[in-house]
Amino acid sequence: MEPVFALGLGVARDSGNLVAQIYNQLSKAILQGRLASGTAIPSSRLLAQHLNVSRNTVLQAYSRLQSEGLLITKAGSKTLVADITTTLPNSTLAANLAGMIRPQWQNTSLFAQPGTSIIEFNFSIGLADTSLFPFEIWRRTINRQYRKMETRTMEPGHPAGQPLLRNMIAKFISQSRAVSCSPENIFVTSGAQQAYVLLAQLFIKSGETCVAIESPGYPMARRAFAAAGAIIVDVPVDEEGLIVEAIPAAAKIVFVTPTHQFPTAVPMSIERRTTLLKLARQRDMIIIEDDYDSEFRIGSHPIDALQTLDTDGRVFYVGTFSKCMFFDIRTGFIATPEWAIPFLANARQALDWRNPLTTQLALAEFMQTGELRRHIARMTPIYERRYSAIVAAVHQHAQGILTPGVMRAGLHLTLNLNKHYAAQEVCNKALQRGVKIHCGNEFSVTDKIPNQLMLGLGRISQQAIEPAIKRLVSCIVDKGN
Amino acid sequence: MEPVFALGLGVARDSGNLVAQIYNQLSKAILQGRLASGTAIPSSRLLAQHLNVSRNTVLQAYSRLQSEGLLITKAGSKTLVADITTTLPNSTLAANLAGMIRPQWQNTSLFAQPGTSIIEFNFSIGLADTSLFPFEIWRRTINRQYRKMETRTMEPGHPAGQPLLRNMIAKFISQSRAVSCSPENIFVTSGAQQAYVLLAQLFIKSGETCVAIESPGYPMARRAFAAAGAIIVDVPVDEEGLIVEAIPAAAKIVFVTPTHQFPTAVPMSIERRTTLLKLARQRDMIIIEDDYDSEFRIGSHPIDALQTLDTDGRVFYVGTFSKCMFFDIRTGFIATPEWAIPFLANARQALDWRNPLTTQLALAEFMQTGELRRHIARMTPIYERRYSAIVAAVHQHAQGILTPGVMRAGLHLTLNLNKHYAAQEVCNKALQRGVKIHCGNEFSVTDKIPNQLMLGLGRISQQAIEPAIKRLVSCIVDKGN
Repeated sequence: MEPVFALGLGVARDSGNLVAQIYNQLSKAILQGRLASGTAIPSSRLLAQHLNVSRNTVLQAYSRLQSEGLLITKAGSKTLVADITTTLPNSTLAANLAGMIRPQWQNTSLFAQPGTSIIEFNFSIGLADTSLFPFEIWRRTINRQYRKMETRTMEPGHPAGQPLLRNMIAKFISQSRAVSCSPENIFVTSGAQQAYVLLAQLFIKSGETCVAIESPGYPMARRAFAAAGAIIVDVPVDEEGLIVEAIPAAAKIVFVTPTHQFPTAVPMSIERRTTLLKLARQRDMIIIEDDYDSEFRIGSHPIDALQTLDTDGRVFYVGTFSKCMFFDIRTGFIATPEWAIPFLANARQALDWRNPLTTQLALAEFMQTGELRRHIARMTPIYERRYSAIVAAVHQHAQGILTPGVMRAGLHLTLNLNKHYAAQEVCNKALQRGVKIHCGNEFSVTDKIPNQLMLGLGRISQQAIEPAIKRLVSCIVDKGN
Repeated sequence: MEPVFALGLGVARDSGNLVAQIYNQLSKAILQGRLASGTAIPSSRLLAQHLNVSRNTVLQAYSRLQSEGLLITKAGSKTLVADITTTLPNSTLAANLAGMIRPQWQNTSLFAQPGTSIIEFNFSIGLADTSLFPFEIWRRTINRQYRKMETRTMEPGHPAGQPLLRNMIAKFISQSRAVSCSPENIFVTSGAQQAYVLLAQLFIKSGETCVAIESPGYPMARRAFAAAGAIIVDVPVDEEGLIVEAIPAAAKIVFVTPTHQFPTAVPMSIERRTTLLKLARQRDMIIIEDDYDSEFRIGSHPIDALQTLDTDGRVFYVGTFSKCMFFDIRTGFIATPEWAIPFLANARQALDWRNPLTTQLALAEFMQTGELRRHIARMTPIYERRYSAIVAAVHQHAQGILTPGVMRAGLHLTLNLNKHYAAQEVCNKALQRGVKIHCGNEFSVTDKIPNQLMLGLGRISQQAIEPAIKRLVSCIVDKGN
């Protein structure tokens, strides 16, 4: 018998909402572990027959479980129980109250505690090298802003950000990414994460709006959309980026990282970009383009951003200063069609009002005086040399085992792994031997993922690269422990 | 005919979800202005008869409209169309996309633009006097933190905040408010606003969870709960604070400002506090206690916080540094039962990861060195003198017209207005004559509000108070313009 039928589900026609009855029984079974992670869920038709209710009723219950992260579905494929780890408190009272927590936050493994392994070679991704950041200049800039604050009455200003900062950001991305925008298009956020949250607040109707995301993809974007109650569909990625044809017809929003796909590092081909924009026009979809680390280029000029290619004004372009400066700056932005600014302002005020003024003004000054440009110019060849050193070491020591993937920008690269080895196993073993790397499994809820390793460039020194790759290769080919 | 029936609503039984059909027709009519603000909505029984559907179907559609802020309901009273001002963009494409924006953000009057009136006497509420804040000490403290950052690798740390800051906050509120907590109970947030958002993320299920809030009350807390899809019930406030008996049985969360009710300034009586805690126990409700400006005391010791009186651990106590320091600090906190910390951490990471480390560590040092305590000690008598000056000026110049309300803490006071005058009119006329004051109408969606004026203490100097009150009185009694 299928596990779901073994639960003894039932509905009482006289006890009100049938959708809620089915939802409640299934969510309880998942949170209590009676339905294990990965369990296949019967088709809505089968369960509807079994319970003698309409198929639509079952579909509504499933879509709610999906939007709360308890079920996962991939494009054109089965629905499975998601991976949930939950630990409810001991005392009855606390357990009662904790039972009120929305299912999507109950997974206690979501908040990653730092590991206990000793890391000798650190290829962590998503982190910039801040050892050469001009902190002294930054500190003096912040200082000047605080001095000004002493002598004037602070006025909170527009939630979109200080005019000078919006101006500087518009100039910066117009030059560096040919993003077509003016200061009126810029909305300053508390990092890229808040940009996803704001766009989710604006466009996602709980249990209704379908969002297509990349798989493998950026888990924290997924989490922001899930928190807003989106129905999330994982669309696969290949060597040209997001497979546009696999976007389901129901999707109203597409989240995509075309410059440097997270985490596979491939740039989206120009054909795919054109097809995606065409599809978006046909279906009236919104595109969220996340260009999280495109400031650092490797080799040739990157392909135009979707925002640049778009003629409609349906692309929301998200950027961040976490990579080109340092993560504690907590500043990102959306380049948005201007009509959306007042709606974003409403949503931002209800979230946390605005970014701190002193940081905004200091960042504006840091850009205006050319310091940011100088820092990026200083760091780009450093990252490029690290990239080249990895590629060279792989060619020399990992022939037939690892092949570097294509990459044009960003702070991490991908190594394709020979199909005789499994990426997840290699990651685990490497970590045991002091090499921190990543693989697609960390960034996907489905199992159709490329057999690849991801290596970040932010925390590894030039000299450490050759010994690190040699160690990594020994982890792959050495059969023992 | 009732306006709703005049719309020509209809449902098609073969076109799927009946709730969605009713919801869509009504929300469109409200957003397009065909149902005007304040229009009474027929009872669910009547509309169900009219459409020949079950009453439950209509109730579900109403509750969704309510959770999206399109309808408002007060405890035990009629349901009305909310006040919505929306301006969709001109171009067809933009209007199409903007039509996807969730109804609660479409009210373009939500983001208040600064007024154009020239303000001579500023009694704005919610603002602290920062003219005496020791910005130079603060700047040096921030500076020291940035210097440290230059010499170490930054580690992001726990989303709940830096251990030293959690420690200092726990000490601070244990001493100043007898809040019973240890550092493990503190969760640092980006201001009080984000504290509401986090608790809403945790506990509010869209279209389901009923939240009781004070009326008049703090509009931005309402907005945070509405954004999460709460069904909001406005519970009236009298001279003992929130009327506990009026909390509907359906409420799972109560939001309350017991120390210094926002905006009526009354302290909640000890009887009401005990009744509220008892009711919460009986009905397994969660209480969110917002103690937004209790650091500044007027006269006698304030009554114990609900968090202090609570023996269950069902009170989430929210505080902020915007008032006792300055608003740009963007730091608040929740004193929470410890079991909720990992859930809050999950939700916080998905919102914007964490507060900036440098600000966290600088604030911790500022508290540890006693600077915060000294600043509060310096400011308390200043605010107290302003309060006394207002009371004295009212006694002298506004006998029979204005009567000061009770107040034990905080940065604004209430003046009860003689029933022959209307608070809203007085506010408008005062603003025309250069006196900025507030009234309950700004903070309520219902019309049963006390006839009161609210005066903030943060932006008015001691010497300006007597002439300001005289000007105010002239606005009340002078019949001309």
